Amino acid sequence: MTEFIPPGTCFLDLPSPFPMKRGGALHGARVAYETWGVLNASRDNAILIVTGLSPDAHAASNAGNREPGWWEPMLGPGKPIDSDRWFVICVNSLGSCKGSTGPASINPQTGHLYRLDFPDLSVEDGADAAAHVVRELGIERLACIIGNSMGGMTALAFLLRHPGLARSHINISGAARALPFSIAIRSLQREAIRLDPNWNHGQYDDERYPESGMRMARKLGVITYRSALEWDGRFGRVRLDSDRAEDDPFGLEFEVESYLEGHARRFVRRYDPNCYLYLSRSMDWFDVGEYCADRAGNPGDTDTRAGLAAIHVEKALAIGVQTDILFPLQQQEEIADGLRAGGAQSEFLPLPSPQGHDAFLVDIARFGPAVAGFLERL
Amino acid sequence: MTEFIPPGTCFLDLPSPFPMKRGGALHGARVAYETWGVLNASRDNAILIVTGLSPDAHAASNAGNREPGWWEPMLGPGKPIDSDRWFVICVNSLGSCKGSTGPASINPQTGHLYRLDFPDLSVEDGADAAAHVVRELGIERLACIIGNSMGGMTALAFLLRHPGLARSHINISGAARALPFSIAIRSLQREAIRLDPNWNHGQYDDERYPESGMRMARKLGVITYRSALEWDGRFGRVRLDSDRAEDDPFGLEFEVESYLEGHARRFVRRYDPNCYLYLSRSMDWFDVGEYCADRAGNPGDTDTRAGLAAIHVEKALAIGVQTDILFPLQQQEEIADGLRAGGAQSEFLPLPSPQGHDAFLVDIARFGPAVAGFLERL
Repeated sequence: MTEFIPPGTCFLDLPSPFPMKRGGALHGARVAYETWGVLNASRDNAILIVTGLSPDAHAASNAGNREPGWWEPMLGPGKPIDSDRWFVICVNSLGSCKGSTGPASINPQTGHLYRLDFPDLSVEDGADAAAHVVRELGIERLACIIGNSMGGMTALAFLLRHPGLARSHINISGAARALPFSIAIRSLQREAIRLDPNWNHGQYDDERYPESGMRMARKLGVITYRSALEWDGRFGRVRLDSDRAEDDPFGLEFEVESYLEGHARRFVRRYDPNCYLYLSRSMDWFDVGEYCADRAGNPGDTDTRAGLAAIHVEKALAIGVQTDILFPLQQQEEIADGLRAGGAQSEFLPLPSPQGHDAFLVDIARFGPAVAGFLERL
Repeated sequence: MTEFIPPGTCFLDLPSPFPMKRGGALHGARVAYETWGVLNASRDNAILIVTGLSPDAHAASNAGNREPGWWEPMLGPGKPIDSDRWFVICVNSLGSCKGSTGPASINPQTGHLYRLDFPDLSVEDGADAAAHVVRELGIERLACIIGNSMGGMTALAFLLRHPGLARSHINISGAARALPFSIAIRSLQREAIRLDPNWNHGQYDDERYPESGMRMARKLGVITYRSALEWDGRFGRVRLDSDRAEDDPFGLEFEVESYLEGHARRFVRRYDPNCYLYLSRSMDWFDVGEYCADRAGNPGDTDTRAGLAAIHVEKALAIGVQTDILFPLQQQEEIADGLRAGGAQSEFLPLPSPQGHDAFLVDIARFGPAVAGFLERL
């Protein structure tokens, strides 16, 4: 099975065993990361970026890899996250297939791929792995932790479990807990993969690969990452050039269908299906309120606000987008309010981007100044 | 194959042949319908209801069938659509499997089910069939045509193709054309069915039935009919009582997943997969602007507003819901504006229902007074 690690990726070993939140431990596991800029002598100019489900650690071009990264317009010299000022680290999520240890990695205890033998993966495990990287790089306190989408969950878990390790926080299109609507969508994506006979309880290979299931899951993802209004402007009702095939009466006809198909094709063989299942489920499980309830000794009770108020940072910014149906705007407002209750100087910034959940990747005209402004005032 | 026709359903034969908009014709076809109330002597108190994709003609209990219908709180004596005053007709859509002729009906020319031999189905064909029922019942002019969801499209097609056949119109969560976002969702639903090996290019039976594909399609439907905020209040993060099965590590865990599963199970064997494909695709094709362009002789050009302005009714009301992601609120505003441009006294009513596209079925507290108020002022 192929791994999908960009050139120039760095690696750090995790402590072995590395205990997992829901039980079990990893042995000989590692985290993939990349960096931009230089850590100053007082080691107080470091920023950590934690990502959504699918990105690798290559957020932008750097010395090790000149190819553009997934957040290229946002990160680099003179850009909103200015690598002339900041030392920036981006980690690949634990459980991913882009360099960090995950279900598509070899289990050193068996010599075979983990597949479904990988222990239950929680967002908190990814946060702990990221915190280990930060400390190993000699950083006692981050200037800021920035988390997008799933990374917004990871950042909150990081702040809860590693108090004092970050001075400030930018949460972008993130959430303090998974909503049932988002759980429903992710559950359906996982069902599409699991229903594909080629998934075979995780025992697929390159020849017998759950391609249809992954295609369905990715298409549903792309639909929920965007918004109705944006697509109307982009695609309207434009038809494909070619006529419908006579032998496929329900085949592709509209440009938007072909766009989805192209997105899915690019993804299905570039992301490991088992890793997708594990990371997807980790988001469903996430709930900062549960963390707080654990502390209070009432595990059945969760209180999102109390969980957020248990986080202590100096400054925080939660940015969201009105057209986001997957992590709706109310969730970023909840984060901003909760962090304020914990003592932070905390701001909620709703943006009118039409691009939905993915706006932070494309609407740099709005997100760039918001992020740059916060970092400048640090 | 089973048909799913409620007891007490009435039938009217369509002219044979019945020409279809995109070519071909039906022979010996029929439309299922039900009625409430009494047609008065001047035959001017008739209301027609055209429905969404899945409902049958049994909108509410009546003399022929005492079971509650799908719009029970809205229709009946003393209810918002008051059958003490109005003679109400609800037709089952042409192409459905609930009584009207569709792909699950027998093709009289072969003696076998139509399946994929059914001609291309357009929303306009359903409108023509409904208009035939209205005329056959001796009605020269409806007091009002009410269309919900897909029925909102059917009603607009009805008004365009049968000028003068209705005095007024209520469009509920409808659209003047399919948006690419909605096309993408429906395309994915159709793909789920088509990918199921048991679909077998439409040649399934009760033993080899595309159950998984229909389940996926229905779950995706139910997700897009509702909204994130409503489900948070309903389900929150409540877990199912039973523990996760050891042998199904990605099985159902949250109540919302079990809710979706229940919905899907009830639907899968109660709706014909080929009918689903045909009606779903008919919505993607719908565009009142195209109709207008056809007239203007520029078939590549469509102009939604001009299409709507070609409709002439005395009064119109377009109701929509802010949380609707499938037929977003802007589409109902577009309808109200377009009908006003055509000379109607036209009102746009956005409602703050949290229930998304399906709000008209459940938020009777808001929809009831809106519909009743409009009808009272007729």
